[in-house]
This record gives sequence, C-alpha cells and structure tokens, in this order.
Amino acid sequence: MPLFDKVALFGVGLIGGSLALDAKRKGLFGHVTASSRHAETLDKALRKGIADRTTLDALECAKGADLVVLAVPVSAMEEVAKAIAPGLGEKTIITDVGSVKGQMIRAVERAIPYPSRFVPGHPVAGSERFGPQAAVEGLFEGKRCVLTPTETTDRKALRVVQALWEGVGMKVVEMDPVQHDWVLAATSHLPHLVAYAMVETVLRARKTAPDVFDYAAGGFHDFTRIAASSPDMWRDIFLMNSESLNELTELFMSTLSELKKIIASHDGVELRKMLESARRAKEEMKK
Amino acid sequence: MPLFDKVALFGVGLIGGSLALDAKRKGLFGHVTASSRHAETLDKALRKGIADRTTLDALECAKGADLVVLAVPVSAMEEVAKAIAPGLGEKTIITDVGSVKGQMIRAVERAIPYPSRFVPGHPVAGSERFGPQAAVEGLFEGKRCVLTPTETTDRKALRVVQALWEGVGMKVVEMDPVQHDWVLAATSHLPHLVAYAMVETVLRARKTAPDVFDYAAGGFHDFTRIAASSPDMWRDIFLMNSESLNELTELFMSTLSELKKIIASHDGVELRKMLESARRAKEEMKK
Repeated sequence: MPLFDKVALFGVGLIGGSLALDAKRKGLFGHVTASSRHAETLDKALRKGIADRTTLDALECAKGADLVVLAVPVSAMEEVAKAIAPGLGEKTIITDVGSVKGQMIRAVERAIPYPSRFVPGHPVAGSERFGPQAAVEGLFEGKRCVLTPTETTDRKALRVVQALWEGVGMKVVEMDPVQHDWVLAATSHLPHLVAYAMVETVLRARKTAPDVFDYAAGGFHDFTRIAASSPDMWRDIFLMNSESLNELTELFMSTLSELKKIIASHDGVELRKMLESARRAKEEMKK
Repeated sequence: MPLFDKVALFGVGLIGGSLALDAKRKGLFGHVTASSRHAETLDKALRKGIADRTTLDALECAKGADLVVLAVPVSAMEEVAKAIAPGLGEKTIITDVGSVKGQMIRAVERAIPYPSRFVPGHPVAGSERFGPQAAVEGLFEGKRCVLTPTETTDRKALRVVQALWEGVGMKVVEMDPVQHDWVLAATSHLPHLVAYAMVETVLRARKTAPDVFDYAAGGFHDFTRIAASSPDMWRDIFLMNSESLNELTELFMSTLSELKKIIASHDGVELRKMLESARRAKEEMKK
C-alpha cells in the first residue's frame, strides 16, 4: 500500500518531477495529479511518467488529495496555497520543497485552513538544471532533506513527510526555519550571488579587453556553470532570503577586503596563512 | 631531428612535467635534464619519464642547453635566471610558463646575458592539481598559449617557441605582457581570490552555525575545488599581479555591491535582468 494514495503535485521541475519519479517507482505514491501554469510543461511531465494525470486547474488538482506537494518557485508558494485552500481537507498533508523557509512558511500557514498539516521541507538536491526535462530517478539518494517545522506543525504529519523523504533515500534532519535560511544563505545562496557577480564582472571587463572571454580557463568555468541556473528561481530565492543573504554578503565582502589589503601590503606570510586555511577547510569538508 | 636537442627543464610540476612528457613523445625534445630544489621531486620526475637526467645544480643543468624552460613558481623565476646566467650561450633560447608576466619579464631580462633570447609565455592549462604526480600527456591539446614578447625579444626565437607549443597541440597567440596580466587577473586570478574568500567566509560563518559545512551543496563545492589549488603558487600569483588584481577586485566588489543594493531594495525586475545577463554570457562563452 502506498504511503499516499492520491498525490497533488504542484510544479514538475527538477525537484517535483524527480520526487514523483522516485516515489512512484518505490511505491510511495499511488496516483499523481500534476498541476502547473503551462500546458506545455504538463505535457512534458506526462510523457516522462512524472504524473498520471495533469490539470491547469490548481483547486481541482488539490481536491481529495492525501498529500499536496508544493514544488513551485518560492515566490509562487503563497499564491498556490491560496488557490487550493478551499480544496484542502482536515487530513490532507501539505509539504513544500522551497530553498527559503521563514517568510514563505508564515504566508502559507496563513493561507490554508489547517496550518498544522503543513510540513515545510527542503530537499538539498538542486543543481543548475531545471524543468521537467531535468527530472531524474535517484536524485535524492544519500542527500540531506531539512524539515523546518514550526510550533504549529503537527508531529504526526511531520513523521509521515519524514518517511517520504527517507523513502527516496534522503537523510532527514530538522532545523529551525530561520537557522535554515541562514545556513543556506552561507552555503548556497551567497555562492550563487557571488558567481553571478563574478560573471558580470568579466562582462564588464570586456569593455577594457574585448578578447577576455577567450581566456576564461578552468577556474572561471565553475562560476559560469553556477551562473547558468534559472534566473527566475534565483531572483526569487535572493529576494525571499534577502535578510540572511545581506548579512552573509557583508561577511564575504569584509573577508575579501581583508585579502585585498593583505595583497596590497605584500604580506606573503599572512596571505599564505589565509589560503592554507581555505585549503584545509576543503579537506575537512571531504570527511 | 628534434626541435631542441638538449633541454634544461626547471620545475617538473603540472606544466613543466606535462610539457616534457608531450614534447619527448612527439620528438620535439631530445635529451632533457631537469633541475629542482628538491631531490625527492626530481626522483619522481625521473621515474615518470619526465627527464632523462636530473641535477640539483641549476647552473650545471643549463650549461650547453639549446632550450631552457623555466617552469618554476613565478616568484622563483628571477632567482633561477640569475643562477643559470653564467651558463647561457648566445644561441640558448629561454622560455617560461608563468601565469604573471609584466614584472617577472623585466626581472628575467635584467638577469640574463642575452635578453633577446628570452621568449616569455603562458600556456593556459593550469588546474588545481600540482607537482610531478599531476603531469599528464595531452594536457595542452586544444588550449591556448599566450606568448608575450617585449620590444627586446628576438622574432626568430619567438617563432621557434611558437613551434614548440603548437607542436604539443596549443593555439598560440601573442599579447602585450601588461594586457596579459589584466586579462588573466579577470579570468583566472580574481576567480581564485573570490573562491578563497568564499571558503573563508563559510569558515567564519561556522562560528554562528557549527553545522554549516554539512549543507555545503552543489554550488559550493565548485568553490572549494578551486580553493584547493596550491597556496604557495597562488600567494605568488596574487602578489606578482597585485596591481591588475586590485583593479579587478574593485570592479568585482562594486558589481557585488550593486547586486546587494538591488536585492535590498527588492527590485525584482532589475535583479532578473542582471541574472539573465550572466546566463547569456555563459551561452556566449560556449561558442
């Protein structure tokens, strides 16, 4: 017997699509109805086996579901929650996969009739790929899923959502939503912002040296890879997590300023110390 | 007949080692004598077939060579040039592989008896790996080599060095040394500095959130990969190219500040425009 008989899936991109593929394959999901704003996207999802049925009508999609998965961009969560609110029963569990939690959780809790049934979550499995074409089996295997319950969240609903993510191979941890947003700002949102700024800098440098792109070697390509991520998704993440991101950006800028000063003063000893410390961090992260 | 009968190779790391492997395999180098400050490194190079003979005596290594290749860290170029100067004949061609040119070129030209025979070059083929163990065949294939002759450089010597790099598969271009340092600061040195600053920022963030390393997902690992490069080599590059690097760091910081301001003012339209422009740059670079 599946963990959820009737699933309503909002958003069929990398995360939503991959979840449906794995959960169906592993018998965790019974029947999946997917909804999205674009008929074209839904057709792709249907062809790929992500959904059994699709509809452009959000409310109709949610009606009678045991589980609602919000896998839309973080900026659209509230809107979808409002649209489906009349169709949500007392037993419907709602979860999401958004990369930013604090602000969004409060908005969704306000929008739905049984906020205790909302279990906010973030499977940390993103990449620069997006859309139904990016969905793959096994995406979540061995990775972390952060569940960020509030004082409102029902503990039983929490355990059921935990079972779902563990069922697709994730290591589930719990974290306070504000803490989550800060940690993700440091390890994911700031790195993306910095990558965008780096690529934009080289674009501007081209005004001085038109052939600068021809020399974009090894190190630089890692930056362009990150900066190729969906501009819509990252605009949303940056705006929704602007507070923590702002704090971390300031920490980053002061660190870079320090390095800049050390280089300007030609302090080779101190400079090597800082570079070596970054190198050791890498070693530590391998563990 | 090889392009060079007797080659004196200083430095047997990623670049020097890989060059010797390819040039010997392709019949461009006859006999290779390698020198380094460490006997242990030379033993590794000998075992790997990078050199036919090794010596700790720099002067003895250079004597009678047709070609001297300086593949030591940029900070050591001048010192090696001084040490081998008495052994350099009128016909000996000298070249180097350093990532920074301007300042180093002037120092080497001053140190040697026939500065017109010095052809400064930079095969853009680095990676985060280093040492003789990192040397591989085919490293240069299809990549760019920038030769940075000065008004002193002999054009015939320049053509011979060009033939060498083309012989191991590189596309050779010429550039003014100052222009080279600026372009490389933008596309390689600044990205490395930014990666070091990013990793250091997360290290500092750990004081607020001890488990921050556990969430270092996809995007962040590209930064740690770059930051794992040799601290000694990068200290040298940053210091030797401090002027251009400083300019580019300022350009980067003002770009990041702009993004930060746009996010703080919640200007989604402008933010998306900047993210989309970075994305397009990536597309353009693929061409």
